[in-house]
Amino acid sequence: MEHLSVAAAQRCVLESVKSLGIESVKLEQSLGRALAGDILANRDQPPYDVSAMDGFALRGADVENAPAVLAIIEDIKAGDMPTKLLAAGQCARIMIGAPVPQGADAVIRVEDTQAVSDTQVQINCAVKLGNDIRLRGESMCKGDVVLHAGTEITPGVAGLLAMVKRAEVSVYRQPRVAILSTGDELEGLNDPFDANKIPDANSYALMAQVQTLGIQPVLLGIALDNPDELHRALQSGLQYDVLLVSGGTSVGVHDYVRPTLEALGVQMKFWRVEMKPGHPVAFGITANTFVFGLPGNPVSSMVCFEQFVLPALRRMMGHVRIYRRTIAARLTHDVKHKHSRAEFVRVMLSKEENGYAVISTGAQGSGMLSSMAEADGLMVVPAASKGLAADSRVTVQLLDGTAFQNDAGGEW
Amino acid sequence: MEHLSVAAAQRCVLESVKSLGIESVKLEQSLGRALAGDILANRDQPPYDVSAMDGFALRGADVENAPAVLAIIEDIKAGDMPTKLLAAGQCARIMIGAPVPQGADAVIRVEDTQAVSDTQVQINCAVKLGNDIRLRGESMCKGDVVLHAGTEITPGVAGLLAMVKRAEVSVYRQPRVAILSTGDELEGLNDPFDANKIPDANSYALMAQVQTLGIQPVLLGIALDNPDELHRALQSGLQYDVLLVSGGTSVGVHDYVRPTLEALGVQMKFWRVEMKPGHPVAFGITANTFVFGLPGNPVSSMVCFEQFVLPALRRMMGHVRIYRRTIAARLTHDVKHKHSRAEFVRVMLSKEENGYAVISTGAQGSGMLSSMAEADGLMVVPAASKGLAADSRVTVQLLDGTAFQNDAGGEW
Repeated sequence: MEHLSVAAAQRCVLESVKSLGIESVKLEQSLGRALAGDILANRDQPPYDVSAMDGFALRGADVENAPAVLAIIEDIKAGDMPTKLLAAGQCARIMIGAPVPQGADAVIRVEDTQAVSDTQVQINCAVKLGNDIRLRGESMCKGDVVLHAGTEITPGVAGLLAMVKRAEVSVYRQPRVAILSTGDELEGLNDPFDANKIPDANSYALMAQVQTLGIQPVLLGIALDNPDELHRALQSGLQYDVLLVSGGTSVGVHDYVRPTLEALGVQMKFWRVEMKPGHPVAFGITANTFVFGLPGNPVSSMVCFEQFVLPALRRMMGHVRIYRRTIAARLTHDVKHKHSRAEFVRVMLSKEENGYAVISTGAQGSGMLSSMAEADGLMVVPAASKGLAADSRVTVQLLDGTAFQNDAGGEW
Repeated sequence: MEHLSVAAAQRCVLESVKSLGIESVKLEQSLGRALAGDILANRDQPPYDVSAMDGFALRGADVENAPAVLAIIEDIKAGDMPTKLLAAGQCARIMIGAPVPQGADAVIRVEDTQAVSDTQVQINCAVKLGNDIRLRGESMCKGDVVLHAGTEITPGVAGLLAMVKRAEVSVYRQPRVAILSTGDELEGLNDPFDANKIPDANSYALMAQVQTLGIQPVLLGIALDNPDELHRALQSGLQYDVLLVSGGTSVGVHDYVRPTLEALGVQMKFWRVEMKPGHPVAFGITANTFVFGLPGNPVSSMVCFEQFVLPALRRMMGHVRIYRRTIAARLTHDVKHKHSRAEFVRVMLSKEENGYAVISTGAQGSGMLSSMAEADGLMVVPAASKGLAADSRVTVQLLDGTAFQNDAGGEW
C-alpha cells in the first residue's frame, strides 16, 4: 500500500469496477451512452439501386460513341418508383436518391448533358457501367451487424441507429453519483458571506467534471468535521453507485472521514498515491458503492478525478475508451522534478508547425484553481523523471475544454 | 458565387452571425456556456495565511539548528481561528487549510517531526521562512478579474465561479435550432416500415451534432417535396434562430427548397461550396434566422454541419474557440485527389511513437454513414492538393467521439 504509483492505483480501481445494468432510452436521449448490444440492419440500404447524382439513367452501350441524343421516357425523383422499362436509345431523367429504372446500367450527371427538347437530351460523354449508381445494400444488408456492443453513441452512430429505425436503444445504465464536501472551514454556495470561511469550490468543480460525462450528480452539500455528522452524511452517500468525498483524507488527527467510512463498512483499497498534486487520495468499496476520497484542495481534487474517477465512471457506463485522450507535444521550457511522485502540470497548448507546443499555466500551487480554469491539459511528469528539458516531447492529457480551437486550422 | 472555397464560405457564414442575447443560469446548468461578462473576486483567497500541510506552525529561527524540541500551545484545524500568539520556543499543531497563528512564520509537515509528548514535538530539520504557508490573497485578491467575458465554462471554471460565490452566472443565450428533413422518399423514425423508403437518418445525426454543443434542437420532422407543404414547414422553421434543412438543395428540377426559401424572404448567400462530400450546401439569412441547406445524404450533411453550422452555433453561443480542434498526424497510405474540391476524408487515429497515425475508414461513398460512425476525425485534403502520399503530415479535425481513448497513454 506504500508508494502506490498512479498506474497501480488506476489498476486497483479498474479491477473493482464494471459496467452497470442495462436500460432502454429514447434515441433523442442517447448521446454519449454505450450500446449494450449489437445492432443489426433491419433492411437493405439503399433498398434498391439509386442514383448518386441528378442526371439521366441510361444504357451505357447507347453512349459509347457520345455525343448521342436519347429519348426521355420518364422523370424519376426520390420517393418515386419507375414505371417503365428502359429500351435502347432511351433514358430517364433521374434525381439523386431516386431508384434506377430497369434496363438502365449507368447514370450520367446533368452537367455532362445538354437539353435538346422536353423529350430529348444530348449525352456529351461515354460512361462506365454502374457509373453514379449506388447499389442496393451498398451501405448495409439486412441482418448485418452495423454497430457493436460497447460503441459510444456519437452523432454518426445516432444517424446509423435512425437508419436502422431504433427509436429506443438499449444502453448501459449511468452510475448515480453523489458528491460530499467536508470541512468546518467551508462556506456553501448559497450560504451568507463570511470573510473567514473558504468557499466550497470542490462540490461544483466535481459536479462539472461528472457532467462532462453526461451524468447529473447529486450534491450532498458540506459535512462538518465531527464523527456524528460525517456518519450521517457518508451513510446517505453510500446509497449511490459512486460517492465522491472531498477533504478529510489527510493524515491529520482531526480527519474523521477514513475511520467513519471504515465504521460504515467501506473496505479501503488505498489512501495514498505517489502523485502531485493529489497525494492523499483514497479509494474504497462496499457491496454497492465505490467511494473516492479526494483531497480538500480543488486542484488536487480535480486532478485525482481525472486519473481515477473518470476512467471508473466511463467503465461503469460501458465504454471502451475510458481515459482522456493524450497527445504528444513539445515542451517549451524546463520543468524541474526533484521528488519521486508523478506530477500533473496544468498546461496550455498552442499550435506550431508540426503539432502542439506546451507551456505551463504558471504557478502550480495546489490552491491555484485559476490554473485549472486556464489549462488545456495536464502534462505528465513521470515519477521516475529527473526533470524535463525544453524541447522534450511530453504527454498531455486533454481536458474537457479542448474540443475546440479559435482558428479553422488552415485554408482549404 | 461560383467556386466558393470552404474557407470563403466559412467567412461568409461567420461574418453574418454574432453572439445572441444574455441570460442568467444557475451554476449547475452552466457547463459549456460562455461567460457574458468579466467575473471579479468577491474576497481574498485564501482569506488569511493558511497551512499547505498537516504539520506544525513555528518560528523558523527556533529550528535553525534542528533537531529542536518545541512546546505545542494549540491545535488549529481548518475552520478554527487561532486563539494564541506564538512565542519563541513554541509551535501549534496545524492542519492543511487552517489559519497560521500570529507569531509563526513557517509550517513544517508532520513527516519531518517526531512526537515527544502530548505537549512537545521534535522538529527534525530547519525550514525556510514562509515554508508551506499559502499567503492571504495568493489565489485571488478581492476585485481581481478572475475570469474574462467569453470564457467557456469548463469544470475548472465552474470551480472558480463557486470560489467567488456565483450561484447564478450571466452567459450568452443558446441559439434555438430547428431541424427539418425533406424528401418524398423518407420514412420517419416512428413511421411503419416500408421496404421502398429510405429512413430519415439526417434528422437524428444533425440532432446529435447539435446536442454535442449542449443545445437541444427541435425536430420538425419530414416535409414532402411539394411547394405547399415545404412552404408551411419552412415557415415554421423560420421562427427559430437557426434552421437546418436537409435535402432538396441540389440542382434537380424537383427541388423546391431554394425557391420556397426565397419566396419566404430568405436572402441566399451561397448554395454551392467546392467541397466533397457536401457540394450542394446552402446558406441564407432573414432578419432573425440563419438557414443552412444541407445535402440529403447523411454523411455529406454531417460534414457540412462540421464546417459551417458548428462554428456558427459556437459563435452565437459567445465562444471564442468556435472550430473543432485539429491535430497534425501521419497519413499511413496514399490518397488520390483528382478534382479541385477540398475533401473531408473520414479517418481513424491510432497512436504511434511520435503522435498519431491516420487511416481512412475505408469506402468513402457519401452513402456510407458507417464511415462517419467509425471516424475519429475528418482528414482535410486541400482543394489544391494533387493527392497525398503515405507518410505525409496531414490535418485532422477531431470529431466528438475522440475525447477519450482506450489506454492511459503511459505508466506513471
